[in-house]
Amino acid sequence: MSKTVYVTRKERFNAAHKLWHEEWSEQKNFDTFGKCSNPNWHGHNYDLFVTIKGVPDPITGFCMDLKDLSKIINSKVIDKLDHKNLNMDVDFLEGIKSSTENVAIAIWEQIEQDINACGCQLHAIKLYETENNFVEYYGGK
Amino acid sequence: MSKTVYVTRKERFNAAHKLWHEEWSEQKNFDTFGKCSNPNWHGHNYDLFVTIKGVPDPITGFCMDLKDLSKIINSKVIDKLDHKNLNMDVDFLEGIKSSTENVAIAIWEQIEQDINACGCQLHAIKLYETENNFVEYYGGK
Amino acid sequence: MSKTVYVTRKERFNAAHKLWHEEWSEQKNFDTFGKCSNPNWHGHNYDLFVTIKGVPDPITGFCMDLKDLSKIINSKVIDKLDHKNLNMDVDFLEGIKSSTENVAIAIWEQIEQDINACGCQLHAIKLYETENNFVEYYGGK
Amino acid sequence: MSKTVYVTRKERFNAAHKLWHEEWSEQKNFDTFGKCSNPNWHGHNYDLFVTIKGVPDPITGFCMDLKDLSKIINSKVIDKLDHKNLNMDVDFLEGIKSSTENVAIAIWEQIEQDINACGCQLHAIKLYETENNFVEYYGGK
Amino acid sequence: MSKTVYVTRKERFNAAHKLWHEEWSEQKNFDTFGKCSNPNWHGHNYDLFVTIKGVPDPITGFCMDLKDLSKIINSKVIDKLDHKNLNMDVDFLEGIKSSTENVAIAIWEQIEQDINACGCQLHAIKLYETENNFVEYYGGK
Amino acid sequence: MSKTVYVTRKERFNAAHKLWHEEWSEQKNFDTFGKCSNPNWHGHNYDLFVTIKGVPDPITGFCMDLKDLSKIINSKVIDKLDHKNLNMDVDFLEGIKSSTENVAIAIWEQIEQDINACGCQLHAIKLYETENNFVEYYGGK
Repeated sequence: MSKTVYVTRKERFNAAHKLWHEEWSEQKNFDTFGKCSNPNWHGHNYDLFVTIKGVPDPITGFCMDLKDLSKIINSKVIDKLDHKNLNMDVDFLEGIKSSTENVAIAIWEQIEQDINACGCQLHAIKLYETENNFVEYYGGK
Repeated sequence: MSKTVYVTRKERFNAAHKLWHEEWSEQKNFDTFGKCSNPNWHGHNYDLFVTIKGVPDPITGFCMDLKDLSKIINSKVIDKLDHKNLNMDVDFLEGIKSSTENVAIAIWEQIEQDINACGCQLHAIKLYETENNFVEYYGGK
Repeated sequence: MSKTVYVTRKERFNAAHKLWHEEWSEQKNFDTFGKCSNPNWHGHNYDLFVTIKGVPDPITGFCMDLKDLSKIINSKVIDKLDHKNLNMDVDFLEGIKSSTENVAIAIWEQIEQDINACGCQLHAIKLYETENNFVEYYGGK
Repeated sequence: MSKTVYVTRKERFNAAHKLWHEEWSEQKNFDTFGKCSNPNWHGHNYDLFVTIKGVPDPITGFCMDLKDLSKIINSKVIDKLDHKNLNMDVDFLEGIKSSTENVAIAIWEQIEQDINACGCQLHAIKLYETENNFVEYYGGK
Repeated sequence: MSKTVYVTRKERFNAAHKLWHEEWSEQKNFDTFGKCSNPNWHGHNYDLFVTIKGVPDPITGFCMDLKDLSKIINSKVIDKLDHKNLNMDVDFLEGIKSSTENVAIAIWEQIEQDINACGCQLHAIKLYETENNFVEYYGGK
Repeated sequence: MSKTVYVTRKERFNAAHKLWHEEWSEQKNFDTFGKCSNPNWHGHNYDLFVTIKGVPDPITGFCMDLKDLSKIINSKVIDKLDHKNLNMDVDFLEGIKSSTENVAIAIWEQIEQDINACGCQLHAIKLYETENNFVEYYGGK
């Protein structure tokens, strides 16, 4: 019987953003997005949890080397988001509203291939915007 | 392809309760519920996580406005439980033993309709009684 | 040179209480204590940090055996407060309003002698009522 | 309709270990396991979450008495792992590399029968090695 | 003997900022402030702890009503910083570099008078920028 | 008036150790140190908080560049303790019993000079062995 386990790595990034729809007035933006629409930005300490799924190797006991997992997350996600403006500085978020929902989906798409190439399967992205609000994405399932 | 995400909001309440079966003696209550049966009550800082499931709106990037979600949770749950006695003060817990299991189920039933009316689906209730004990409820699934 | 260090032990208790002045009307109690005056009680998971001060023993490297410290805190404080009603069940809180300030002071007085008898000095009591509110007491200094 | 809930109990243990394959050179061990291969061991404060699944009893409101659950986890797992060396001191880890993945699987196998004998079902083991790395196991599913 | 206690209230704000010296080149800014100098801003979830010092009132058991303390902190600090840009939107930070050190000092100066007017004494400001970096200020002592 | 602030940096290390006095029997070691005397070691995730004291620079707003502080802590402490055995692998702990008290003192002595050379003053070492036990050292004061 194969023994599937789920392994999670936590990383962090600090970023500025605002929720703002260009085609709307400042008033309509405020009515919809509240204080998140502040024109001069605000920001967060984001906590990111990436979960992969696999079977432990009989010799190493690892599904995947966590150093490799951390490298993928850092090069494909953290280096691009940390100390950046999510609305202005990030290639893979261009044209996407920076809600936690959308950022979580975009992070999934950014790392899915690299992780699956390691013989594991990307299982979940969990993204905390604050201690009170977080989003989980399982590839659309 | 629709991209389902899961969005969680954390709220808190502080309440008194005891675990006590009226038809039993004090001794049998103590044997069953231990120190949770203290006749003069005890209490907890409860942490409540409500998870909804939906697809982000193409314009706002939201599954559901978190301010609306927070309003539902507060008016239907927190306002009724916070700084209250779970055994004596809460209409929707009448006749229900205030175990964490039962309180989690009752919270689900209290908010399910209002959340589904917002075009999302209630997915999970997670209720911490202490940092060491918590319960999850997925509508019976 | 003697090398003074400060050693802290964390313990926990869950208790019911209310803030209520007998000589006042229900209205005046509510005006003063807000929802903390709910007649049927509410409760908290209290986190208690006890800090002692001393010089590490040259052989053990301990200021004081933490098992002894924990025993004192448990027998003199936790056993009397945990799963109790702070207003009704606790000998050393009789006649004292159960504000976090007063409970912290009373805990200090409850354990000071026993700790000092171990060759250390009680330095601080830190008592969390919620994650947002806590009190520190240094023996009145 | 039966109302299935998931109940989780958190316990902790502190243990030493190293990741080391006997048939490999020190260099190959270091190349594979990095600083986790330090010959003189290192260690962790492990956080263990055990989740069971069941239907609350109509009288007690419990799926399973948490004191019973805690007793099983302590006698079968914590007493054997706490303040021990995972590679040397633990009968049920003999011949198993002490990766978090493998320890989580072994803990499942160690308690599954006892929990199921209580009329509940073991649902998940979640094991934190550090705040940044954790593993979940659902019996191979 | 008067029994001085220290009471702390935690509040939170989410803000954007950058560390940037106008008279320096982008390169010199980067050399000095590293990634904190990103021209398009970054941001944080700040945790703010305000500690006051006083003697509990013999009737209420309070040093100061925490609702009053919270009102002062919110009207004088949080409302002005939350979901704002610390470099652009805040009157009491004008002309001040938004290092955690300087923001902590400015918060002290913003609330000292109001708190002392309540018969207590402001004792400490503790400001977390991230879980790894925080600053304490005791009025210059 | 100079405005002294206290700046804290958190770092982490995972290490093995045991509490053991060579000149004592296994029984006497167990009687004194309890399960911490397990001959095959145990270990912890240690959390280290280093606090410095200084006046913010009028241009940068920093007491001390946190990157420099982090570099000192990492090169002088973390690199030597992380994934090591505190009793066997660490030059600056040789001949010292690895109680949290003693390790905290030794860390102070290891970094005091380097920090003071940066124009700040080392103020405190806070070292967590577990979430329930920690030690603070202020240079012997």
